[in-house]
Amino acid sequence: MTRLTDLETPCLLLDRARVEKNAAAMIARCRALGVTLRPHVKTPKSLDIARITQGGGIGPVTVSTLREAEHFARHGYRDILYTVGIIPAKLDRLTRIQRETGATVRIVLDSQYVAEGIAGYARNIETTIEALIEIDCGEHRSGISPDDSSLLTIASTLQAAPGVTLVGVITHAGHSYAENDIDAVRALAAHERDSCIAAAEKLRQNGHDCPVVSVGSTPTILHADHLEGVTEARCGVYALWDLAQASRGMCSLDDIAATVLTTVIGHNRQGNCIIIDAGALALSKDIGANRFMPAAGYGILCDAVTATPLTPLSVNQVHQEHGTVDIQDAAWFERLPIGRQVRIMPNHTCMTCAAHDVYHVIQGDQVIDNWGRINGW
Amino acid sequence: MTRLTDLETPCLLLDRARVEKNAAAMIARCRALGVTLRPHVKTPKSLDIARITQGGGIGPVTVSTLREAEHFARHGYRDILYTVGIIPAKLDRLTRIQRETGATVRIVLDSQYVAEGIAGYARNIETTIEALIEIDCGEHRSGISPDDSSLLTIASTLQAAPGVTLVGVITHAGHSYAENDIDAVRALAAHERDSCIAAAEKLRQNGHDCPVVSVGSTPTILHADHLEGVTEARCGVYALWDLAQASRGMCSLDDIAATVLTTVIGHNRQGNCIIIDAGALALSKDIGANRFMPAAGYGILCDAVTATPLTPLSVNQVHQEHGTVDIQDAAWFERLPIGRQVRIMPNHTCMTCAAHDVYHVIQGDQVIDNWGRINGW
Repeated sequence: MTRLTDLETPCLLLDRARVEKNAAAMIARCRALGVTLRPHVKTPKSLDIARITQGGGIGPVTVSTLREAEHFARHGYRDILYTVGIIPAKLDRLTRIQRETGATVRIVLDSQYVAEGIAGYARNIETTIEALIEIDCGEHRSGISPDDSSLLTIASTLQAAPGVTLVGVITHAGHSYAENDIDAVRALAAHERDSCIAAAEKLRQNGHDCPVVSVGSTPTILHADHLEGVTEARCGVYALWDLAQASRGMCSLDDIAATVLTTVIGHNRQGNCIIIDAGALALSKDIGANRFMPAAGYGILCDAVTATPLTPLSVNQVHQEHGTVDIQDAAWFERLPIGRQVRIMPNHTCMTCAAHDVYHVIQGDQVIDNWGRINGW
Repeated sequence: MTRLTDLETPCLLLDRARVEKNAAAMIARCRALGVTLRPHVKTPKSLDIARITQGGGIGPVTVSTLREAEHFARHGYRDILYTVGIIPAKLDRLTRIQRETGATVRIVLDSQYVAEGIAGYARNIETTIEALIEIDCGEHRSGISPDDSSLLTIASTLQAAPGVTLVGVITHAGHSYAENDIDAVRALAAHERDSCIAAAEKLRQNGHDCPVVSVGSTPTILHADHLEGVTEARCGVYALWDLAQASRGMCSLDDIAATVLTTVIGHNRQGNCIIIDAGALALSKDIGANRFMPAAGYGILCDAVTATPLTPLSVNQVHQEHGTVDIQDAAWFERLPIGRQVRIMPNHTCMTCAAHDVYHVIQGDQVIDNWGRINGW
């Protein structure tokens, strides 16, 4: 068996026990809320992690690329939701995935233009397209307001189209990531829930079926006071966590399951800094944690084996392959000699993990497995 | 033949004619300066582009990962320079590459500790290790000052070690990227050159051979008044260029060869923005151009086929797979309907290209080839 310290750096580590604990907590939380957990695999992009987030089986998943949809469909997943707004040009690939695998890949739209494109497309194919209308619950990125008249126009267009089924409404409180106040998150969760339910009710009052009411975002699912009327929860970052979430009080540093293993490759004694072999490519340039945790830099340094933070060290500067760690105390040169490995807790795990093709799965100081990722599109 | 507009988005485009023009200009520049061009493949990470940057043949290259070294060595490259400070733990892989391919992979170091590690390692192997000492010319990331006494200690340690050859000195004026004033860049280029030559002279005066005097950075090579005494130039970003370089006056927008093709997937009429399917993963979160070109955002929008900038549009916000383009004039909704493709000029091409596995090589509106990239470590 490989020891963690025998790995070539930089590389991505995954603490399996932490993923299992994170997954179990969210499974319990969704059970308590009475909603189906449809984990977002855009964070881990891994079949192995997805299996853990579903308690060992295969269940409904959320994806953000058609490559993820394709991969999960080919590996037995039958109920997939692609949450990035569809365009007609992507329907060929989507229906090919459905036809070749037998999976259903539900799509999301927010415009009459796309609804008409889907309706026109569906006329000429044999497979069925299941669609959800995207509702804006305050993030103001995409989606329509529940009281926008196009909600009913889109619904009618879809309903009238042979081969198309309107299955529900979907929203995403992505703006909950901007908060570090639990009460504020709870209020956003209520608004997310109520907006989506209002849209569903409006559809039902106008004669449309709306079995699915789908909401998502790790913070709002964690802190919603209830989700009555909601049918499913999509969240993803909770499986791995990161400093951005820790900085907002959503998890503790001990929950962070994915880290980057790196090696000290230089001592700049004049500049009072230590150089590591994880730079912008291995860590990403996301500094999302810094708003509420300025000390996070481009990532927090931890002991390679125990994952204990080496407070106050973080990655302060990144070049393509070099990371720079500023030190105040020259004793760090002795504690972290050239060749010593350290781990970096990432700012934003979705971005950092996407720089790597594989998770080196660890238990203590042992590498127990390698799990691939589905990067790209 | 595939038309550009038939590609699935997001994806990476490469305008071959622009790469050829950029490459020819740097070949001519280095010839005029009387230095060997050793292109840095960390930007393009592509055998095909490397071939163009060397006028069609195979010549000396610079790499920043051992994976790049391995790949280029396996494809006929014999003279490779790995410029990220080596550590003894990486020597096994390095010497394996040398043994298996017959290539020489030169290494770089800046400490006595590593020099001793190399010397100790070299005793037990049959291959030869060629090393360069890294000099700091003002970037203050790594390297030692030319007047640091460890220069001679390191040189003596290497020289005394059987199987190790000290071949020269190397420096990198990475801080030239912070300037947008040509006179300032010229001054940095002079300092880069003079620092490296001073170190070489000191070595020679003390009885060491120092055949290689290696400097690098696209801006300083472009604007140095002369490079007498320097033997080789390492630069990489010039092959593809980007907004960061354009913002500093190093190239024009017409020179940028790598762009991201993306599709309009939504119109947020209330929010006066257009949503595209290139987000943080497809573009990176680098905003290096913004210091001198605030309008660059996360990338400038261009016409998909002609690459003409759609002034004043840029990507103003990114989520994982969504990009948001703010508009002042609602006429853009008509000019860029849902489904319309646009191209994004990247902030920092090294970061953006690393998000993709393949270049879709284009000529006009046709895709003429696909060229792979060597991402990862």
